[in-house]
Amino acid sequence: MPGTPPTRFAFLGPEGTFAEQALRTLPAAERGTRTPARSVGEALDAVRAGDADAALVPLENSIGGAVGVTLDELAEGEPLVITREVILPVEFVLGARAGTQLSAVRTVAAHPQASTQCRGWLRTYLPDATVIDVLSNGSAAAGAATGEYDAAICAPVGATRHRLAVLADKIADHPDAVTRFALVARPGPPPPPTGDDVTTLAVYIAHDRVGALLSVLMELAVRGVNLSRIESRPTGKALGEYVFFLDCTGHVADVRLGEALQGLRRVCADVRFLGSYPRHRWSGAEGEQPVPAPAGLSDADYADAAAWLARLRAGELS
Amino acid sequence: MPGTPPTRFAFLGPEGTFAEQALRTLPAAERGTRTPARSVGEALDAVRAGDADAALVPLENSIGGAVGVTLDELAEGEPLVITREVILPVEFVLGARAGTQLSAVRTVAAHPQASTQCRGWLRTYLPDATVIDVLSNGSAAAGAATGEYDAAICAPVGATRHRLAVLADKIADHPDAVTRFALVARPGPPPPPTGDDVTTLAVYIAHDRVGALLSVLMELAVRGVNLSRIESRPTGKALGEYVFFLDCTGHVADVRLGEALQGLRRVCADVRFLGSYPRHRWSGAEGEQPVPAPAGLSDADYADAAAWLARLRAGELS
Amino acid sequence: MPGTPPTRFAFLGPEGTFAEQALRTLPAAERGTRTPARSVGEALDAVRAGDADAALVPLENSIGGAVGVTLDELAEGEPLVITREVILPVEFVLGARAGTQLSAVRTVAAHPQASTQCRGWLRTYLPDATVIDVLSNGSAAAGAATGEYDAAICAPVGATRHRLAVLADKIADHPDAVTRFALVARPGPPPPPTGDDVTTLAVYIAHDRVGALLSVLMELAVRGVNLSRIESRPTGKALGEYVFFLDCTGHVADVRLGEALQGLRRVCADVRFLGSYPRHRWSGAEGEQPVPAPAGLSDADYADAAAWLARLRAGELS
Amino acid sequence: MPGTPPTRFAFLGPEGTFAEQALRTLPAAERGTRTPARSVGEALDAVRAGDADAALVPLENSIGGAVGVTLDELAEGEPLVITREVILPVEFVLGARAGTQLSAVRTVAAHPQASTQCRGWLRTYLPDATVIDVLSNGSAAAGAATGEYDAAICAPVGATRHRLAVLADKIADHPDAVTRFALVARPGPPPPPTGDDVTTLAVYIAHDRVGALLSVLMELAVRGVNLSRIESRPTGKALGEYVFFLDCTGHVADVRLGEALQGLRRVCADVRFLGSYPRHRWSGAEGEQPVPAPAGLSDADYADAAAWLARLRAGELS
Repeated sequence: MPGTPPTRFAFLGPEGTFAEQALRTLPAAERGTRTPARSVGEALDAVRAGDADAALVPLENSIGGAVGVTLDELAEGEPLVITREVILPVEFVLGARAGTQLSAVRTVAAHPQASTQCRGWLRTYLPDATVIDVLSNGSAAAGAATGEYDAAICAPVGATRHRLAVLADKIADHPDAVTRFALVARPGPPPPPTGDDVTTLAVYIAHDRVGALLSVLMELAVRGVNLSRIESRPTGKALGEYVFFLDCTGHVADVRLGEALQGLRRVCADVRFLGSYPRHRWSGAEGEQPVPAPAGLSDADYADAAAWLARLRAGELS
Repeated sequence: MPGTPPTRFAFLGPEGTFAEQALRTLPAAERGTRTPARSVGEALDAVRAGDADAALVPLENSIGGAVGVTLDELAEGEPLVITREVILPVEFVLGARAGTQLSAVRTVAAHPQASTQCRGWLRTYLPDATVIDVLSNGSAAAGAATGEYDAAICAPVGATRHRLAVLADKIADHPDAVTRFALVARPGPPPPPTGDDVTTLAVYIAHDRVGALLSVLMELAVRGVNLSRIESRPTGKALGEYVFFLDCTGHVADVRLGEALQGLRRVCADVRFLGSYPRHRWSGAEGEQPVPAPAGLSDADYADAAAWLARLRAGELS
Repeated sequence: MPGTPPTRFAFLGPEGTFAEQALRTLPAAERGTRTPARSVGEALDAVRAGDADAALVPLENSIGGAVGVTLDELAEGEPLVITREVILPVEFVLGARAGTQLSAVRTVAAHPQASTQCRGWLRTYLPDATVIDVLSNGSAAAGAATGEYDAAICAPVGATRHRLAVLADKIADHPDAVTRFALVARPGPPPPPTGDDVTTLAVYIAHDRVGALLSVLMELAVRGVNLSRIESRPTGKALGEYVFFLDCTGHVADVRLGEALQGLRRVCADVRFLGSYPRHRWSGAEGEQPVPAPAGLSDADYADAAAWLARLRAGELS
Repeated sequence: MPGTPPTRFAFLGPEGTFAEQALRTLPAAERGTRTPARSVGEALDAVRAGDADAALVPLENSIGGAVGVTLDELAEGEPLVITREVILPVEFVLGARAGTQLSAVRTVAAHPQASTQCRGWLRTYLPDATVIDVLSNGSAAAGAATGEYDAAICAPVGATRHRLAVLADKIADHPDAVTRFALVARPGPPPPPTGDDVTTLAVYIAHDRVGALLSVLMELAVRGVNLSRIESRPTGKALGEYVFFLDCTGHVADVRLGEALQGLRRVCADVRFLGSYPRHRWSGAEGEQPVPAPAGLSDADYADAAAWLARLRAGELS
């Protein structure tokens, strides 16, 4: 029912991974039910089927890049919209059963992406340990808890869940790495504008790519709409057809973004609106402030121009 | 009174010039009063003062180019709007008193622009005649009628008015030359759209000219608005400040032109609307047809996009 | 002979007009011969025929706008190039025979454009005088000298030439009005770059005007080339075909302007180069300074980028 | 040694995955040594250290999207260049020990991305089987060979290597899915142009994203350079700084691409060249043909424009 806050949440499992940690930053999810799904597709299908009110899935991460399966599901499956984004610092710890000494660690379980991100730390502190690939950060922690491995690279939530002692924290080589998750729901009125919002679109263009992409950017630029992300993917439907995923600054309720959306609707083969939602200003990005509308492009400027046009049409001035 | 057809017309005199001929192509002017003015400024001031309902003045001609004084008066004086354009083929005849033989012509009176346009004809048919500069096509004809000169280069209307015989017609070297006149009135509701209209604007931009001009063109291009004329003139107010005179295809009542106008209003230092009026499809331009709105830019496409945006904002689809 | 300074000059006559005054600001012309021509076409034909080394003709003026006949001659006749520009303040004086009192002036001879520019002054100081149109500023002065008229509005040079007393000077309503003249010669190596040059082009584009004009501006903008003038004129050859007259900042010898010219050559129906020459920094425009190349677009930046590309192609870096 | 064909190849392991299969499509690799690496970083480091001549790593795949770790390594580590691309249809088979009946399969090992891509097939033909996540397609095949699982979803090469019988082939739901791999080497002269090449760039821009991205696209568009891929990634160095990965049509040796590269070098914060190499026209893309240079942008057109400019500068024409 539109307007009813979600209480049943799905997330990309298993438990103890970053997706669960991200979900639990949302108070409603902390109070509601949280069900792990085996894949992004399963999580989203649970929402489509009405078995969940919302699903938390990864959109992009610092190492793996955009999560193609999420984008494809949003662009082509039965329509869903993003209602929230959660940006989570990708913080890794080395967890082990209580009493384990770092010097005694011979085997470290880790998801390949996790061990890649901690390569420098491992070379320095555990140069002789064997790294064993496992399927997820959660299963690494689980394996360390059962003693299958001496230690695990995992998320803090994974160490907590599996009652591991933290031998070292913040062991990633790039301390600023983040993963960006989307909370996805069935279509409904977007959350109200906050003055610092993101709008995500899937824009289809055919054939001439530079020319067509220039047209898309011109539609945005003349309305002062900025991009914080752009990614092309082949549609897989026809040769030379591309879909662009755009994260625009602003909210569908803003006049200038609304006008830009209408422009895209007219010039592109297709546009799918994937949601307007508050930008997540996470603690690691304190310095980044919302950008005010450029000169001449505020809602007030639009109102002034509309009033002027009305007077012109009425012959009241020239 | 708005809506009342004009009955009192001023025009750039003197009588017997192309401006009078152009004015008389308008049925209302043929029925009304027609008063010559000594300058463009005087003609327009007569309208501003209420002494005339409308004034016919030249905007541009094939030889002299844009008529700067008209543009400046429209851009900077008390606001007036163009309600009609008249395009008149610049057709010259050689007129003389009845009974004059071509072979007997020794002196030809002509406005310097007129003799320039007929240079080839004069070299061929009157290589030994002396050309005498006079102030207007009308005074050339008047001088031939009194016998001051053997013949005159003038407009057909000048020959008629001064009862001259036409020794040769269509003597201009470029038979396609035209002058474009504007009928100018006090501000009021524009004439209704015809589907083949022109909108004239004076657009002020400051400083960086290529960048600023690119912005102006992008505002037009994203709405599919075409230009049939562009001219820059320094504003004379501050160094590096320019005003662009634009003739756009379309009518202020069109959705896409209205949106483009609002865009210009927001990004330019100033925009003055100088009128929307039917394009004059004169007989010499039969082949040139009105250009339909590009794909995606008709009023219907705008309405579709607006309805789509309304549904997005209501959460009815994504 | 290329390299030989011109000694025989033609100019748009008659004597005593602004064109002569402009020509005499050039030391070479002051020393050489100066022959008035009856029209712009005649002046340019004298150069083409070898009867003159160079001709001074008006390009644009503050009141009349662009001088179409000059543009057309340069764009379509046998090729000529501009080697110099002269910007002359349009300064009017009221001249009369020695001993004439201002209060005694009943008739004033003036070219219609001149009296238009002095309308305010006439209203204030000679409200009861009759203004009589004449064909040029020079003939106004001549008429005052013979006593045909009590006074004349003319250029200072006209008063001097006809030995008139100056009853009032700087009588134009807009003291900043100027006329811009071009010194035109047969094709030859352009004058060397000065760091503050203008390049004039005639650029032909066909059909879709906003799109094609956007292409032209993009070719300039990506090389940081600025425009100080743009004017469209129909070519008169085919419907919907336009020629744009562009004044660009920079010299054909500059790397970035050279690259932009090549770009225009490739994308336009035709480009005619009309000369690179020093910008005339006249005394009334003291504050306007040459604009340095934008960041990344100096000749040094071009050289750096070319060297980088050469290394890339040699496989020396990535 | 530049020019010596590579003989020692690294690839993203383990053996029996798509990367090995892609590598073996290259005759030189089929003849040379092929060493699996545990991560993209390890594979590329082997090349940097001189332990391998080239490494084959994934760039993007239909399901997972761009492979961020590869892009980051290429953009920020010690410079390497792509010398070849290999596009491999992502073809999955169901492999099992000889004699296994499809109806007897109760457990299926699969990498999560592989089972996601075969979801439809599994639902139809093995609705009751349990899918067990494993770390790679290679380890799925290995587990089926040892009898740990009844069957495995794997690449054809995995079935062959582990002597599995193929119970079903082409079981992916989207038969057109592909993975795109890059063969990466130390910097050296690029392979010669073939007329159908790709150039990959990492382009850094700061701050205003739409404006800066518009500048980048304009540099490409005015030279008729097309894009087949664009992806933005935050640089991780400073807030609001982005790097764009571009796949452009053409070769660094092409005149127009060379000019575009120089333009990017001048306007962007930084540009890293990541290689020019033949486009891989794989069998599934037979219909897609190389796009000829747009009108006016061939190497011949560039040569013509350069010759014209040289004549202009010499004063030989206008």
